[in-house]
Amino acid sequence: MNGLIGLDWGTSSLRAYRLDGAGHIEETRHRPWGLRHLPEGGFDAALSAVTKGWPVLPRLACGMVGSRNGWREMPYLDLPAGAAEIGHALGRLMAADGMDVHIAPGLRDPHGPDVMRGEEAQLVGALSLRPALAGTSSWILPGTHSKWVTVRDGKVTGFRTLMTGELFALLQQHSILGTGTISATANPDAFARGVVTARDSGAAGALSRLFSARTLMLDGTLASESVPDYLSGLLVGEEFRAALADGLAHRDTPLQLIGDVALCERYRRAATHFDIELDPPLEDAAAHGLWQLALHAGLVHQAPKDIASC
Amino acid sequence: MNGLIGLDWGTSSLRAYRLDGAGHIEETRHRPWGLRHLPEGGFDAALSAVTKGWPVLPRLACGMVGSRNGWREMPYLDLPAGAAEIGHALGRLMAADGMDVHIAPGLRDPHGPDVMRGEEAQLVGALSLRPALAGTSSWILPGTHSKWVTVRDGKVTGFRTLMTGELFALLQQHSILGTGTISATANPDAFARGVVTARDSGAAGALSRLFSARTLMLDGTLASESVPDYLSGLLVGEEFRAALADGLAHRDTPLQLIGDVALCERYRRAATHFDIELDPPLEDAAAHGLWQLALHAGLVHQAPKDIASC
Repeated sequence: MNGLIGLDWGTSSLRAYRLDGAGHIEETRHRPWGLRHLPEGGFDAALSAVTKGWPVLPRLACGMVGSRNGWREMPYLDLPAGAAEIGHALGRLMAADGMDVHIAPGLRDPHGPDVMRGEEAQLVGALSLRPALAGTSSWILPGTHSKWVTVRDGKVTGFRTLMTGELFALLQQHSILGTGTISATANPDAFARGVVTARDSGAAGALSRLFSARTLMLDGTLASESVPDYLSGLLVGEEFRAALADGLAHRDTPLQLIGDVALCERYRRAATHFDIELDPPLEDAAAHGLWQLALHAGLVHQAPKDIASC
Repeated sequence: MNGLIGLDWGTSSLRAYRLDGAGHIEETRHRPWGLRHLPEGGFDAALSAVTKGWPVLPRLACGMVGSRNGWREMPYLDLPAGAAEIGHALGRLMAADGMDVHIAPGLRDPHGPDVMRGEEAQLVGALSLRPALAGTSSWILPGTHSKWVTVRDGKVTGFRTLMTGELFALLQQHSILGTGTISATANPDAFARGVVTARDSGAAGALSRLFSARTLMLDGTLASESVPDYLSGLLVGEEFRAALADGLAHRDTPLQLIGDVALCERYRRAATHFDIELDPPLEDAAAHGLWQLALHAGLVHQAPKDIASC
C-alpha cells in the first residue's frame, strides 16, 4: 500500500490528511488539538486518535509541532529554499506506537530575521498546483501572523510576518477601540473605509491612524457596530501598503492567496483598493505540499501516470 | 482671597492644584480617583476629599472629567484654538456643595478627525511658560495616547493621537511578543535598537516590523528580558518616524516635550536617532494652563506685578 498521512499541526489546531498513492486527498480530519490544547496523553494520543482506522502509512507533519514548544524542535532551514531543500531536511522522531513521525523544518529568512513553520509546506503545495507561478511570484498567507512571501525559480527567497490577526484580536478585545463595540453584521463599507484610510496614510503608515477607529465613532461618522470592520480594513490595508512599500509584492508580478476562503475574501476586497485583482485562494495547499516533501524525502513514490489513472 | 483650584482629572487619576493670586502653585495633591476609580460618592466626594482644608476658590477642571463618561459632557472646540478661545468656552456645573465647577472643553481637529481632553490645558500652560514658542512650534505629549501637536501664532492648529502607550501595554501583556519576557532592568541598547529599526523601516513603517521583537529573540540576538525595551523603542521610534512623515514636526521648527520626566526621557533618547535634540520636558503645565484659562474666563484676575511681589 502506498500513500501518506500528512499532518498540519499548529498552535491551535491539528489537520490530518490521508493521501492515496498518487497524492490525492482521500480524507481530511480536523481536531482542536493544537500545541496549546492537546488531549490527555499529549502528541502521541492526539496522533493515535486523529488517524484511528487509517492504514499504516508514512507520517509527515509540518507546523509548530516542530517548534521549541512542539513535539520535537527542528532547526529552521535558511533561505533560499524550495521543495527539494525542505524535503531533504526532514527530521523525525519515534512515536509511542514504535513508528516514525517525520517533521518538516521551518524556514528562516536571515534578512530580518523572520521565521515560519507550516507555511513552507503550504507554499510547496501551492507551487505544485500553480507551476506557472514558480518563476517569479508573491504570495499572501493571511492569518494570526500573516506571511508575505516572494518566490523565484521555485524557491522561497524572502518573507515577512505581519501580526495582523493577533493585533486585530488584541485591539478588539482589550483596547479602548473595542470598548462598547460589537462585531455585529458585517459591514463591507466600513471595511473598505479602513482599507482606504490605511492606503492613504502614505509613508506615515496606519499605526498612526489607529486612533481614528475611536475618533470617527466619537464624531458620529462611524457606527460603533462598524468599528470592528473598519479596524479590520485598516490592518489588512496596512498589510498591502507596507508590503508594496517593502517590495514584498509588485503590481507587475503575480500575487496569489493561500488559505481560508472567508479570510482570503477580505484580502481580495482590500486588494481592489490597491488596483490588484487576486484569484480565489488555493485550498488544502498544506496536504499537497506534504506530499511533495515526502516525494523529495523518498517517503513516497509518485505512481506512474498510466497506473495512477487506472 | 484670590486664587484658583485647578483640577487635572483624567481616566486613571486626579491631580488637584491650589494656586495663589498670582497663579503660583502652592500645593499639589495626587489621588488615584480617575473616572474609572472614583471613591464612593463619585465626583462630588472626590472633589470634596481632594480639596479638604483648602479655602473657597473658583474651581476649574480639565480632562476626561468633561467627556461623555465624565461628570458632565462638554462639547469639543474645533481648531484653531488658543487660550482665549478655550477660556471663553468653559462649561460649568453645580457641585453638591452648592458651588460651581468650571470645566474646560476638549479640542477637536476636524482634519482626521482627532480629539483631546486635558492636553489643551497643558499646551496653554506650556505656551505661557515658553512664550517664544508661540509663533511656530510642535509639541509632544507622550502617554497612553500620545499627542503630537502643531502650534502657530499661539493657537493649536493641528494634532494627531498615537496609541503608543496603550499598544505597548497590550502587546506586552497579551501578545505573543510578551510571552516569556519580563521587564527587568532597563536596557538602553535594546531601546535604541528598537528606535533604529522603526526609523529604518522607512515607508513600510514599524507595524510591519513588530514581529521582529519575537524573531530576534528566537534568533538569539535579543535577550528575552530586553524584549520590552526593544518593543518600547520600536513604538516610540515609530512616533517620530510617522510624525515627521506626516509633517507634525519638522527638523527646522522647535519641538518641545510636555509630561512625566521619566517617560519624556525615553522620547529624548529616541529623538537623538532622528538628529533631534529635545530640551527637558515642561512640568505642571496643566496647572499653569488652568490659570491662563481662568484668567481668560474672568474667574481670576492677574495680580499687578508690584502687588504680587509684596
